[in-house]
Amino acid sequence: MNGNRKIRVAVNGYGVIGKRVADAVARQDDMELAGVSDINADWRSRMVTQKGYRLFGAAKEQADLMREAGLDVSGTLEDLLAAADLVVDCTPKHVAAKNVEIYRQVGIKFIVQGGEKHTVTGHSFVAESSYVGALDRESTRVVSCNTTSIVRTLSALKNAGLLRRARGTLLRRATDPWESHLGGIMNTLVPEPEIPSHQGPDAKSVDPELDVVTMAVKVPETLAHLHYWAVQLTRPAEKEEVLEAFRSSSRIALIRMADGLTAINTVKELMADLGRPHDNLYEVALWSDMLKVEGDELFYGYMVDNQAIVIPETVDAIRALVGQIRDPNESIARTNAALGIGTIAKALGDQ
Amino acid sequence: MNGNRKIRVAVNGYGVIGKRVADAVARQDDMELAGVSDINADWRSRMVTQKGYRLFGAAKEQADLMREAGLDVSGTLEDLLAAADLVVDCTPKHVAAKNVEIYRQVGIKFIVQGGEKHTVTGHSFVAESSYVGALDRESTRVVSCNTTSIVRTLSALKNAGLLRRARGTLLRRATDPWESHLGGIMNTLVPEPEIPSHQGPDAKSVDPELDVVTMAVKVPETLAHLHYWAVQLTRPAEKEEVLEAFRSSSRIALIRMADGLTAINTVKELMADLGRPHDNLYEVALWSDMLKVEGDELFYGYMVDNQAIVIPETVDAIRALVGQIRDPNESIARTNAALGIGTIAKALGDQ
Amino acid sequence: MNGNRKIRVAVNGYGVIGKRVADAVARQDDMELAGVSDINADWRSRMVTQKGYRLFGAAKEQADLMREAGLDVSGTLEDLLAAADLVVDCTPKHVAAKNVEIYRQVGIKFIVQGGEKHTVTGHSFVAESSYVGALDRESTRVVSCNTTSIVRTLSALKNAGLLRRARGTLLRRATDPWESHLGGIMNTLVPEPEIPSHQGPDAKSVDPELDVVTMAVKVPETLAHLHYWAVQLTRPAEKEEVLEAFRSSSRIALIRMADGLTAINTVKELMADLGRPHDNLYEVALWSDMLKVEGDELFYGYMVDNQAIVIPETVDAIRALVGQIRDPNESIARTNAALGIGTIAKALGDQ
Amino acid sequence: MNGNRKIRVAVNGYGVIGKRVADAVARQDDMELAGVSDINADWRSRMVTQKGYRLFGAAKEQADLMREAGLDVSGTLEDLLAAADLVVDCTPKHVAAKNVEIYRQVGIKFIVQGGEKHTVTGHSFVAESSYVGALDRESTRVVSCNTTSIVRTLSALKNAGLLRRARGTLLRRATDPWESHLGGIMNTLVPEPEIPSHQGPDAKSVDPELDVVTMAVKVPETLAHLHYWAVQLTRPAEKEEVLEAFRSSSRIALIRMADGLTAINTVKELMADLGRPHDNLYEVALWSDMLKVEGDELFYGYMVDNQAIVIPETVDAIRALVGQIRDPNESIARTNAALGIGTIAKALGDQ
Repeated sequence: MNGNRKIRVAVNGYGVIGKRVADAVARQDDMELAGVSDINADWRSRMVTQKGYRLFGAAKEQADLMREAGLDVSGTLEDLLAAADLVVDCTPKHVAAKNVEIYRQVGIKFIVQGGEKHTVTGHSFVAESSYVGALDRESTRVVSCNTTSIVRTLSALKNAGLLRRARGTLLRRATDPWESHLGGIMNTLVPEPEIPSHQGPDAKSVDPELDVVTMAVKVPETLAHLHYWAVQLTRPAEKEEVLEAFRSSSRIALIRMADGLTAINTVKELMADLGRPHDNLYEVALWSDMLKVEGDELFYGYMVDNQAIVIPETVDAIRALVGQIRDPNESIARTNAALGIGTIAKALGDQ
Repeated sequence: MNGNRKIRVAVNGYGVIGKRVADAVARQDDMELAGVSDINADWRSRMVTQKGYRLFGAAKEQADLMREAGLDVSGTLEDLLAAADLVVDCTPKHVAAKNVEIYRQVGIKFIVQGGEKHTVTGHSFVAESSYVGALDRESTRVVSCNTTSIVRTLSALKNAGLLRRARGTLLRRATDPWESHLGGIMNTLVPEPEIPSHQGPDAKSVDPELDVVTMAVKVPETLAHLHYWAVQLTRPAEKEEVLEAFRSSSRIALIRMADGLTAINTVKELMADLGRPHDNLYEVALWSDMLKVEGDELFYGYMVDNQAIVIPETVDAIRALVGQIRDPNESIARTNAALGIGTIAKALGDQ
Repeated sequence: MNGNRKIRVAVNGYGVIGKRVADAVARQDDMELAGVSDINADWRSRMVTQKGYRLFGAAKEQADLMREAGLDVSGTLEDLLAAADLVVDCTPKHVAAKNVEIYRQVGIKFIVQGGEKHTVTGHSFVAESSYVGALDRESTRVVSCNTTSIVRTLSALKNAGLLRRARGTLLRRATDPWESHLGGIMNTLVPEPEIPSHQGPDAKSVDPELDVVTMAVKVPETLAHLHYWAVQLTRPAEKEEVLEAFRSSSRIALIRMADGLTAINTVKELMADLGRPHDNLYEVALWSDMLKVEGDELFYGYMVDNQAIVIPETVDAIRALVGQIRDPNESIARTNAALGIGTIAKALGDQ
Repeated sequence: MNGNRKIRVAVNGYGVIGKRVADAVARQDDMELAGVSDINADWRSRMVTQKGYRLFGAAKEQADLMREAGLDVSGTLEDLLAAADLVVDCTPKHVAAKNVEIYRQVGIKFIVQGGEKHTVTGHSFVAESSYVGALDRESTRVVSCNTTSIVRTLSALKNAGLLRRARGTLLRRATDPWESHLGGIMNTLVPEPEIPSHQGPDAKSVDPELDVVTMAVKVPETLAHLHYWAVQLTRPAEKEEVLEAFRSSSRIALIRMADGLTAINTVKELMADLGRPHDNLYEVALWSDMLKVEGDELFYGYMVDNQAIVIPETVDAIRALVGQIRDPNESIARTNAALGIGTIAKALGDQ
């Protein structure tokens, strides 16, 4: 691949993540969206062509069904892969494992999502932590929304020399808004039966040094996850030191209860007001005035938009695999600029 | 006011409606947003200046509080009114009644929302029905979201000579997403104690000839209202005649269950996919394949985005009061083009 | 079967309906619960023996699993049927169709629930309308919760000579409380794609003379259904005439907004306060002060507890099939007394 | 007061707590319900007389309104207090502070609820921890539902010599089912702005030795609270030791995911199946198979029925103030027997 040519990216699967990855890729000036592959022939696939993206059927059968439904189809996944340098797999959990065989056969670089196991690619990705390790690789796995937020925040504390161990309780949104008519939970809370829940160990797939245990529970809302942490610090610290550590990550946005952002719905509205597509919150939104340090203990909570947080990571992962940009910070800065990451602090004033 | 000059519009109140009116006005090429007045000094008002709009405090006290909070304030409501040709009042229900005195004193044209009584202005507005009657008036009232949808749909039937009488059941969303942490209902249904509910009679404030009775109930969701209708036609009709009547309104969008748009959350996602700000559904979204004609009876259901449906009406009402554009269809077409009304049919294919 | 012996009733399926039927049968002094058959070996089946009922596995496999789980099992469904005069099938929708073959082979009378088709038994049951037609039959179908409520209320109007035609909108609870962690809908409304929805035609399986059309929509709550009706009367009437018609049914309970019963959750709390098992509302709870008559049109709304409303009907259906009690009113009165039907009016004062 | 006479108990306030206290008192063979005082004249107060309890108006004005509504009123609060040995104040949060002046003036012993401050009575009550300290006192405060559960569970660990420090995340139900039409939150999560939340410090009002910090968040359901804990033990321990510690409290009920009790709604259904009034869960329901010990760290979660958990405590508090029964265990055993506490373990088999 030539250094001056744009990276041609295929997106396989046009759901919650796939549609956002496609839009994000289309916004990068060093990338070009080769097209989108999917299996549906309903309104969702109509949006692909409506947006001006090329649409492909996962196989001939799906392509035919799409054509019958009057959609403008450019071919099959095979055709799409032939026209791309890299494919981002956004198919549902565990489906990707089978697609991987196809990608390897075709010889195309690929990215899978956090629903897959670490072993599928042998590398797990969070831009600020493991970009360099992904350089020039054939593939990587962008970890799940929850794990991404854990790695971002705990790495920030670790890098400041403050992290000893972290114990978290994760409130997980029950389903996504676009499919909340198909399933979900109603007027109840559903604990994950296993402690530790999988997110803690999964963070170690990115950074094995993290001492982290998580418990998780499904809650009856569709907007975002919410994490609460009790952290044992390496030493007594001042609150300002901790905030400074979090500020070192461009993908942690400090917000304030005192600004009226007192619940997760208000933060989503803020994203809509900022004009972000799909009201995406790419950052970890962490309440700075709720955060408390007591001696060598730290307590805080933050919000994770499970639909959006992995999008900038995926864009960076594309660059890392292709390898044109070697410096994590350069990739992160380009992604941030293209997606508007950083606008929250500006909008709210200094936090 | 000179015919070549843009209409300078003030927005008083920056909530669910005010923020959308401000954005919609800013998109019209014959209008200019003079500024926004509000009483809050929190994140909501920060969005005003973040968007590049001029911010005013409702009075000196609020302006001072905003300045203390670090906001860039351009003055008070009084200053704003002096710099505008017309003010759209978007303050909470019943507050406008007091503001009206100020507007009259200052001698500025004004629009109030549907929470106010018809008598406040003596004229009630839905663009397709009562634009001409509003020409050159001092003021009008854009009717409520529910009433707007009723007038749009029943007028379409009436204009086709099909409407005898309509009986509707209205499922009302309990609160809006941005303030769903402050109140709402949980795991219950709350009937409006009065039958007929006020929406039916209110439709007659726009068109006294409509024979309409409504019953209403609050339901535990935040997305949109949903209306069900049993209509007695003037004669037996074909389904296609009815659909044709509805198609005659550019602000009724026919959608199909068969396209996968099987619930109100999917329609909101469609709006997000279309890139509309705040996922606004300006149209009445009416299911064409669910609609049923049996002899001289008609049954159908549609969705009403209570946050968005009155926005195009308000834009048209501004033009009507100012009077530069005399033809309703010309104003409607300009508003539709600026807001992207009409894109649903295009996105979904012919309905 | 001897006239002096108690009717031995088997209950097949111990879910939402089965558990309530078992409790209701146990309260009748002319019946005896032969036992309960189920397929689960978890806490739900533990409740069967905890209550002192005999527990049977649907087949040997299930019985063995129950025994392994430490449950006291009395045998299989085959054994249960051998010890009973009649079986009430409370298995999930459409499963009963297969069980019916077993019941016929064994030669036991049986009752199926409203999820099954009318043709499964050739008779559909609502006590006040079709008791006599069920006398001595081999089987009947107790119609669904929605249909039961429709037949009760429209029959009351019909019997008073007031009913011409009825058009209803049905808000259906999305799932039941005990399994609301397994599925449901969240923050949305899901219209039934077909108009008329099946409930209207189903009412005609009990009384073919009813002129009724229904539209239905799933709503995000778990407590109860809520029906709204616009009825064309045979003539102009007074409100009091209509209320008197509804009062003629012992299974319609008039309630008042003015008593503070302003939403369905308050009515469920009233049932809990009355000490009813599982807060059962066996009656149609119809708001008398919300009801409106305008000329020859009638508008009203009522609440249907989908878990409880068919329970008294099922008890009456048992008596009808067995045939000892020939008079519907005698059976209804016995059932009402045993279940406490009638206590609402007493608790609230005259309605 | 004579040793052989039943304790005459007045209940002031007939809401969520008051109605349950009244029923619980009526079930104790050493107590007698003198009557209930309230301010409402709607269906809620009708339930008082419906249950056969004597009803009093808070003052003459309320008594008159009740009489006008057709209720059988026995007098005012003053009359009720004159006929009682002790009053349990169940009025809304912070109202009790004013009532206390009346109680002191009249010279009657009294109990306030956890919404009041510790200083109102100078003593905070959880039966297993502070019964003896309440003996013969003029008054005590039964701590809140959350605090009660914290004291029960942490005291169990402390008594077993295992507790070093506990860090908890509390998911709080947003409102109660009977008033979920009047307020609540919808499709969001609302963090308590202060860390530590008040529940941790409040536990120290009962036992100052507890090292406990809590964070809290309001969640959109009405059934129960859910607590997650990360506990530092005094030493590495076996899981069985910890379970044994919890089993030492008769008011902690161990439940199992493996029994199908996988979410809080299933536990409430279990209470309904057990025939408990209002589906009351008086115990802390703690998942034994979810609980995890890792070295010297312990992780677990449990459910708290905020409507019911303080009821047995209140009954014991009555006995402690009166002082006839000096041994906490004797009172606890009597209360448990009268309310059916202990039936969960029996119903589910050995946990």
